[in-house]
Amino acid sequence: MIRKAEKIKKESAIVLVSGGMDSAVIAAIAIKKFTPIFLHFNYGQRTVKKELWSFNKLKEYYGVKQSKTVDIPYLKEIGASSLLDTKMEIPLDRAHTSKIPSTYVPFRNTQLLSIAVSWAESLGVHQVFYGANQVDSSGYPDCRENYLKAFNKLIKLGTKPESRIKITAPLIKMNKNEIVRMGIKLGVPFQYTWSCYKNTDRACGHCDSCKLRLKGFKSAGISDPIKYE
Amino acid sequence: MIRKAEKIKKESAIVLVSGGMDSAVIAAIAIKKFTPIFLHFNYGQRTVKKELWSFNKLKEYYGVKQSKTVDIPYLKEIGASSLLDTKMEIPLDRAHTSKIPSTYVPFRNTQLLSIAVSWAESLGVHQVFYGANQVDSSGYPDCRENYLKAFNKLIKLGTKPESRIKITAPLIKMNKNEIVRMGIKLGVPFQYTWSCYKNTDRACGHCDSCKLRLKGFKSAGISDPIKYE
Repeated sequence: MIRKAEKIKKESAIVLVSGGMDSAVIAAIAIKKFTPIFLHFNYGQRTVKKELWSFNKLKEYYGVKQSKTVDIPYLKEIGASSLLDTKMEIPLDRAHTSKIPSTYVPFRNTQLLSIAVSWAESLGVHQVFYGANQVDSSGYPDCRENYLKAFNKLIKLGTKPESRIKITAPLIKMNKNEIVRMGIKLGVPFQYTWSCYKNTDRACGHCDSCKLRLKGFKSAGISDPIKYE
Repeated sequence: MIRKAEKIKKESAIVLVSGGMDSAVIAAIAIKKFTPIFLHFNYGQRTVKKELWSFNKLKEYYGVKQSKTVDIPYLKEIGASSLLDTKMEIPLDRAHTSKIPSTYVPFRNTQLLSIAVSWAESLGVHQVFYGANQVDSSGYPDCRENYLKAFNKLIKLGTKPESRIKITAPLIKMNKNEIVRMGIKLGVPFQYTWSCYKNTDRACGHCDSCKLRLKGFKSAGISDPIKYE
């Protein structure tokens, strides 16, 4: 009987949950196979309170028992990004060029992922779920597949051999249309997610993040349950 | 004349200065070619106050104009290391096996280096000096050359192309004897450095870090200027 119970018990996985739609979809994917441990970051981003609200709503919805919110007070200080610095403008309706936008936070994702890996190694957890997406993204360098591969190599070299930690990014090659469709299929509560870079009450609909989200819902033929200006 | 002045002006480099002897030596190396920007971390390590004293002494000694101390409050919380957790014992006089010691802080150096890279990218600085050493080290996985190579690849993939940031670890292949000799040659004020994992007044002389330091001074035929129990 003990053996059977052991077999039934799911392995744990850390899921990086920003509160955005992609993070809600990877949470739904992770939950199919793993017991999710939610991890959220507060690094002084403009919409921090709304993101935390989303994180808590998703946690509640999925009945997540273990979670952590990590404050990174120094990222705002060393940031140089319009996502953090209210003196800078959030770019609206920008042409999609190959240029990296001002909302890019220098090397932020490496910091977030390395915190997730540290925690995973402490807990003895082998899986980290990350909602990066390189197809319909803002063009951030740290959301691409080759970056992810390099990070997984770094983990292998920079942790104990027995830790066997891997970052999985199930959405990396999907477009927003496919992400929305998958989310609907998995019953993701999109009404609790937040993507807007700028506002916290009604989404602006014009920042990169809103535009990508709206594009995804539109092309999937589904209406976005959140409110826009 | 302006052109001449520009030529004379040194490029800046961020130097990770823990306050240990290796970090003081890389600071001395960096200063030969670059204007140093010192970076120090407080992550709840046992000897935090003494390390900060060392950092400030070295800063003063080298006349460093730009520096930053970054607090990482969450590392202690997610740590699982005897370096952070006072309920765990610091291993003394352990046999040098291939096993990674309990003072290893899971994936710590990736966090520290990624903060340095973020700051470098914000400042437009291309060089980061890191005092890692794999020869006479405690066997931490994140102090090895292949780890460093993988990290430099990650930087290339995870930052803006124009940022061109590189981590340099000049001591990576040197033994402690060579590091002490080089430090003496460069006039490093070893009296201001601190290596002990355990104590903050007189070094214990028995932890891994003290033993490696003492070995270095002994084999270089030089007496260590700090006091031991």
